[in-house]
Amino acid sequence: MNAPASPKSLAQDESALERWSREYAQQIGDERPVTNRSGIVIKPLYSPADLRSGSYETDLGFPGQAPYTRGIYATMHRGRTWTQRQLIGLGTPESYNERLRDILGQGATAVSLIPCNSVFRGYDMDEVDAELLGTCGVVVNTTEHMQRCLEGVDLARVSCAMNDPSPFTLLAFMLSAARRRGVDWRSITGTSNQSDFLSHFVANHMFFRIALPGARTILTDHIAWCKQHVPRWNPLSVVGQHMQQAGATPAQAMAFALGSAIQYAEDCVDAGMEIDEVLPRFTFFFDISVSFFEEVAKFRAGRRLWARIARDRLGAKDPRSWRFKFHGQTSGVDLTRQQPLNNIARVTAQAIAGIFGGLQSLHTDAYDEVLSCPSQFGARIAVATQNILREEAHLTDVIDPLGGSYYVERLTDEMEQHIVAIMAEVDAQGGMYKAVESGFVQQRIGESARRFQQGVDSGEQVIVGVNAYQVDEDADARPTNPKPDAATIDIHRERFAQFKRDRSNDGVRAALDALARAANGEGGNIFGRVVDAADADCTHGEICARLRRELGFGQPLAMV
Amino acid sequence: MNAPASPKSLAQDESALERWSREYAQQIGDERPVTNRSGIVIKPLYSPADLRSGSYETDLGFPGQAPYTRGIYATMHRGRTWTQRQLIGLGTPESYNERLRDILGQGATAVSLIPCNSVFRGYDMDEVDAELLGTCGVVVNTTEHMQRCLEGVDLARVSCAMNDPSPFTLLAFMLSAARRRGVDWRSITGTSNQSDFLSHFVANHMFFRIALPGARTILTDHIAWCKQHVPRWNPLSVVGQHMQQAGATPAQAMAFALGSAIQYAEDCVDAGMEIDEVLPRFTFFFDISVSFFEEVAKFRAGRRLWARIARDRLGAKDPRSWRFKFHGQTSGVDLTRQQPLNNIARVTAQAIAGIFGGLQSLHTDAYDEVLSCPSQFGARIAVATQNILREEAHLTDVIDPLGGSYYVERLTDEMEQHIVAIMAEVDAQGGMYKAVESGFVQQRIGESARRFQQGVDSGEQVIVGVNAYQVDEDADARPTNPKPDAATIDIHRERFAQFKRDRSNDGVRAALDALARAANGEGGNIFGRVVDAADADCTHGEICARLRRELGFGQPLAMV
Repeated sequence: MNAPASPKSLAQDESALERWSREYAQQIGDERPVTNRSGIVIKPLYSPADLRSGSYETDLGFPGQAPYTRGIYATMHRGRTWTQRQLIGLGTPESYNERLRDILGQGATAVSLIPCNSVFRGYDMDEVDAELLGTCGVVVNTTEHMQRCLEGVDLARVSCAMNDPSPFTLLAFMLSAARRRGVDWRSITGTSNQSDFLSHFVANHMFFRIALPGARTILTDHIAWCKQHVPRWNPLSVVGQHMQQAGATPAQAMAFALGSAIQYAEDCVDAGMEIDEVLPRFTFFFDISVSFFEEVAKFRAGRRLWARIARDRLGAKDPRSWRFKFHGQTSGVDLTRQQPLNNIARVTAQAIAGIFGGLQSLHTDAYDEVLSCPSQFGARIAVATQNILREEAHLTDVIDPLGGSYYVERLTDEMEQHIVAIMAEVDAQGGMYKAVESGFVQQRIGESARRFQQGVDSGEQVIVGVNAYQVDEDADARPTNPKPDAATIDIHRERFAQFKRDRSNDGVRAALDALARAANGEGGNIFGRVVDAADADCTHGEICARLRRELGFGQPLAMV
Repeated sequence: MNAPASPKSLAQDESALERWSREYAQQIGDERPVTNRSGIVIKPLYSPADLRSGSYETDLGFPGQAPYTRGIYATMHRGRTWTQRQLIGLGTPESYNERLRDILGQGATAVSLIPCNSVFRGYDMDEVDAELLGTCGVVVNTTEHMQRCLEGVDLARVSCAMNDPSPFTLLAFMLSAARRRGVDWRSITGTSNQSDFLSHFVANHMFFRIALPGARTILTDHIAWCKQHVPRWNPLSVVGQHMQQAGATPAQAMAFALGSAIQYAEDCVDAGMEIDEVLPRFTFFFDISVSFFEEVAKFRAGRRLWARIARDRLGAKDPRSWRFKFHGQTSGVDLTRQQPLNNIARVTAQAIAGIFGGLQSLHTDAYDEVLSCPSQFGARIAVATQNILREEAHLTDVIDPLGGSYYVERLTDEMEQHIVAIMAEVDAQGGMYKAVESGFVQQRIGESARRFQQGVDSGEQVIVGVNAYQVDEDADARPTNPKPDAATIDIHRERFAQFKRDRSNDGVRAALDALARAANGEGGNIFGRVVDAADADCTHGEICARLRRELGFGQPLAMV
């Protein structure tokens, strides 16, 4: 071992360390302190003296063993690399389907579906301005649309992540489509990516929102229903990503996500579920910023913390409940509109940090994602980046390759301490639900966002091409914004109008009334009624409108 | 410390390790062994049990202290980041000068000059087909051309690397230009990048080559002369890059480079120089392949080895002699003509490996370098990649950030063992000069190249876009090959003809005769006479031709 084994060699280290400190101070001159985004002071050097006392086994352990610092599975990426899950969504169901098949052919091993903003906001295509339809995602309003999106895709074999906020109409449409195709719901795998309503209240104002109490009930119902009917589906993805994109530091994003996971777990237990029935299906979703080592440490610390929280605080006994499974997405806010091809370098660095952090699933952003819905060309480079890192750079040969690094281990410890301190503040508020209700979380994120922007404005944080290294660019060289063809959208709208005329409007009314009764606590599981409504050819907008009417609209907090 | 501190906790580790091993074996199923390019078996996991016994201080130590495993300076990148040295060279001196100023304005902190292939091969522009002139570098044949290349550049403030093989006419032209401008030679800094003639014999057949004995004398003279007249110039860059580009494994490239450095040092001592006068000016130049951790370990192992070789084998007493200063260039052979923008991701991964390896200077390849002389657009992205890694990913905040990693430390140890074993083979041949003369080195590199290609052919080594993940590409989307304007080249040639008519041909003849006498051991230092010849307006082709006549042409070895 390189680590000193006795007090004697430690003393020798100290004298060499002192010599280094003296030489460093002489040569560096005036140095301003370096801190990472989470506010942790970064020293110029880490050595064995920086490792905290405690045994390897307790703090790190081996992959697949608690506290899982080195990975949640024994084989990790060496056995099965991360899932390459590219988020895609564009235009009409037909264009989405075409892109989906292309991406699957390029090596993606799972799919995702990003709906149009109109869907996120809870409206059908005939309730919004046609101009914006399909520019940021696919316009899916009915089961029939979902059938066209997934044509030729084997639902029993491909894991599907739905960017599907409460009340989870996209999953309802998929389950209805599966039933019509004769696919057993028990074979369906994937994740309700946007089920974390607290993160939407905090950081995602464009999403459909019903008032907090109703949103809370819908999620608990969703988890309970999926557990029973779609047992391989992950009904909850706890999202640190929105908060970090909104300005939370990496430590805050992890702390608030862990706080939310505790809240949701406790809500499930309060609703009568067993903790070890629900936690194995909890997943997490994080931003991977370009702050390289901070992200590696964030993930390692989060994994270690979750194992202890699940076991000691939530009382889970099944090791599957302790495993911190997460999807990482390279951070879009780090990308620049200036010199957009530089984003390929940023995404590569972000992806490496995520891989070293031990993720289970990865989306790499296309370099042109800052300019528009990613082009097919940009998406291919993003997938190729993952393939290169795995196949050519061989980053998956070794599990937790940075484990033991003096810097990474120390930073993991320090990130853990920071996360724990922020979680204690959330606990002092009475948990995440109350901390969001009171605006405490939003306040903290706003402060962090302001601090980061001040650093950019002052030039302390350089962003290449933005506040430094600008170049005169040929605007023509920028990728063009791919917009769906207006005529195609018109056809999609016409077919939708025809669909609404042709369906059984009595069936629609009955399904929506049943949904309303459930929302008022008089008709069983709310999500069960959403699936019934999808089956009855209700549209997304109709389901959302009815729930909004019964449960109230969730107003964003006005931030001071 | 995370590392176990007592036999008791070690025993506990063993049982957890055993459990991991059992679970790993169960879950992984049949696994073929994983080896890196150097042939080292890569295990799935490294832990404290993989660290060799020995103290931290002896094997790693602190930055700026022998054996320098963690870096050759106390401050490393936190104090002064690596030198951003972009290799550029295109067309005429005027177009080179324009590009040079642009790159300096983009954040490059040092310059380089890549001459036209005709220059590398030892010919003037009027001795070769005009068609190829300036397509891969700048056409510099005289002091007057060099004056135009460096117009407006402060020679006393900018470090300049010359891709300048024996007999170093480019440096001679620069010194002559400096004299004409009144710049003191003692203020000039930079490196004779292509002085390592052994690497040219082994792996760079396109270069001008005189027979080995003459090339050896010229280099020793060059080192001796620069030491006296241009004391801040690095007359020797030992180049592992050519060999690795030709197919040597990273371990071989390091071993052969260290073997060459020993050879050159011994030649200098044999010529009467003091070891501590020459070693502080030795620099190294390596390829950074996309084999990520192997490259990090290669550099850390090389640094540790050189400190011990310089001190214990060569008897150097000055710590400056022990410091392994190296320039890294991201590997061009890893880049693909297919889907060329994917190269930005490759270059980013390579650059990160080089930075983690502790380099002093970095060239990042432009993504379009596989297609042509890099375009200005491609070169800007390459420079921006370095800026992003430093400013946004904050990779320079901590010295040797991977130090202590179980994997990286173990791999560093194993790379060191492999390098030492290869060096022992070179010693058994009688040193690098004899090992090149006999073809031993070429043989080994050829074997490695064949083995790698077999891996690619069999699909064992995937290369994205080449033997996997191919896509139909729009050939029009590829960058076009920037070629110098034919009319500009014509003007350059006409001016050259005029220059030859106008100069003093008596002076030229006298200078070349003095050079010939020196080559035959009757006229002092050969390089001193090259500088005199440059001053007398001799051309590059004339100087090379005369030396080739006196010292013989170096035939490449026919490889079996």
